[in-house]
Amino acid sequence: MPVRIGKRTIKLENNTGILSSAGVAGHKESQGPLGKFFDMTYENDMLNEKTWEKAESRLQTEAVNYVFGKTGLKASDIDLVFAGDLLNQCISSSYGLRKFGIPFLGQYGACSTMAQTMIMAALITDSFAADRTLAVTSSHFCSAERQFRLPLEYGGQRNLTAQWTVTGAGAAVIERNCGICRIEEVTTGRIIDPDIKDPNNMGAAMAPAAADTIMTFLRDTKTMPDDYDLILTGDLGFIGSELLIQLMDREGLDISRVHNDCGKLIFYRKEQDVHSGGSGCGCCGSVFCSYIMQKLRSGELKNILFAATGALMSATSSKQGESIPGISHLLHIRACS
Amino acid sequence: MPVRIGKRTIKLENNTGILSSAGVAGHKESQGPLGKFFDMTYENDMLNEKTWEKAESRLQTEAVNYVFGKTGLKASDIDLVFAGDLLNQCISSSYGLRKFGIPFLGQYGACSTMAQTMIMAALITDSFAADRTLAVTSSHFCSAERQFRLPLEYGGQRNLTAQWTVTGAGAAVIERNCGICRIEEVTTGRIIDPDIKDPNNMGAAMAPAAADTIMTFLRDTKTMPDDYDLILTGDLGFIGSELLIQLMDREGLDISRVHNDCGKLIFYRKEQDVHSGGSGCGCCGSVFCSYIMQKLRSGELKNILFAATGALMSATSSKQGESIPGISHLLHIRACS
Repeated sequence: MPVRIGKRTIKLENNTGILSSAGVAGHKESQGPLGKFFDMTYENDMLNEKTWEKAESRLQTEAVNYVFGKTGLKASDIDLVFAGDLLNQCISSSYGLRKFGIPFLGQYGACSTMAQTMIMAALITDSFAADRTLAVTSSHFCSAERQFRLPLEYGGQRNLTAQWTVTGAGAAVIERNCGICRIEEVTTGRIIDPDIKDPNNMGAAMAPAAADTIMTFLRDTKTMPDDYDLILTGDLGFIGSELLIQLMDREGLDISRVHNDCGKLIFYRKEQDVHSGGSGCGCCGSVFCSYIMQKLRSGELKNILFAATGALMSATSSKQGESIPGISHLLHIRACS
Repeated sequence: MPVRIGKRTIKLENNTGILSSAGVAGHKESQGPLGKFFDMTYENDMLNEKTWEKAESRLQTEAVNYVFGKTGLKASDIDLVFAGDLLNQCISSSYGLRKFGIPFLGQYGACSTMAQTMIMAALITDSFAADRTLAVTSSHFCSAERQFRLPLEYGGQRNLTAQWTVTGAGAAVIERNCGICRIEEVTTGRIIDPDIKDPNNMGAAMAPAAADTIMTFLRDTKTMPDDYDLILTGDLGFIGSELLIQLMDREGLDISRVHNDCGKLIFYRKEQDVHSGGSGCGCCGSVFCSYIMQKLRSGELKNILFAATGALMSATSSKQGESIPGISHLLHIRACS
């Protein structure tokens, strides 16, 4: 069963790992540097649905179908699914996963959801409360823009600090069995509010939370940044990543050689005009569940930290003058072979 | 550590229970049959805040403060908090709990959130991944009306099948120690969609999910309704409760003698003009964490099932013609003394 180490870190003890995963993404993502790594990309981001929200639900259905296809598993082989997304009342998850009939526990961690769902799935599986679990998330550029910012038709100019919500989804199957990689420890995040109020600069709002969680993990496990092949953050983007490196540096921790960010990896910054990079639950969802998992399987990556970050605000809270609290949840993951 | 029994039920094995809890509620709730049982009620539902959303956040802060006051615990004594609510991006929870700095895992189960957060807290605590956890939820009539239905100022007439969102919050502290009551087993819910599209009849949309979860629990544990003092549903209200009794009856299970519903208990149906009863995460949040917990402590209730229900829709999904999927999560709870 799981064991607490240090302040906020939990060590898994039963060989709990990721058996398989799948990441799917939209058209713009297919044109980016990771295009060839996704399990599927869609030419048309509507996915033959009638609305963007239904298309986003469809992304979750598709990601789960792909991971079932790869593993030969079916819905009845899964004891619990942990899923969440950015849409109001997390409808991408409830409608996208409805047809599977798997016991469902909705999660909300904003863009940290891929890490949060994997942490929940891993802890519950490691404790024998479930034998096999699923972690799923998604986001969609068009459903996010109209919910959080402006109608797409308005054609508003984007702030240079703004990020581009990824159209994509990720799904990972977790069991007590080192399939592709083992989840060694997890560190849960606290809500950290740096009092930033600009909803077009999420990277800055989330960087302190990432720094807090990564530093807590390193202290709890008595390890250093260079002990890892990669410290991968969720979607701080270019600006947030730079801030994270500075914040860590102030504490005497140089992560610049091993750090990368899903929001930096997924798009060509200039050619694709994405300003500060990718964002959204589907950003690290699709990047982790395809590109990163393939590198863990091939052995190119052996020992990584994955710390996704989320901004816990809404359009309403911003309109009411509230600041944007951030959160970051972390998994330490080691390749099996 | 937890053990799976039957199909979807998990048995807790380490004496995990609820140490203490607190329920707070608004003015209308203070005038209802349970008024005197709440730990605190507020004359003014704005709670001296500037917006209803901030007032709802405040309800969560207050519920946690009351449970800390009762137990002498402070934020640093809690390893993890599981919380969620109905507002877009669950802002009541993130802003209401921000100041405590407790590692935070946001949950979304719509009105089933009190049961979901207690299930997560109980499983994680029982497995030793945490020593002491907190489960929190809230809802607010005014923030819910304007988000899900119409601006209050519009003064629209309410459908007779509609329920009244409770202004209230609940917080419960869970540890491996039978404080007031022990959590014996939990059953997680599946998404059940009875294809109901009327957002003014949530009881009907959620009743099949409650029936599915309660029947699964009874089968998994080989028990009968009369083995329990009370089978308490979350907020099916008057119409949903009647449907649940009928659905169970069809399967040969008569729950009519032991069933009650938080949405029926909290208001005087006619005098308070609430039509089909109370609803919202704060309905079973405040009722369970005050009234029910007090009865478990006094020994008036000894052995109960608590099955909260949620409707996994949003205003957007309803406008897009989607049906309303329901979910229900259940805990079997036994008084310690």
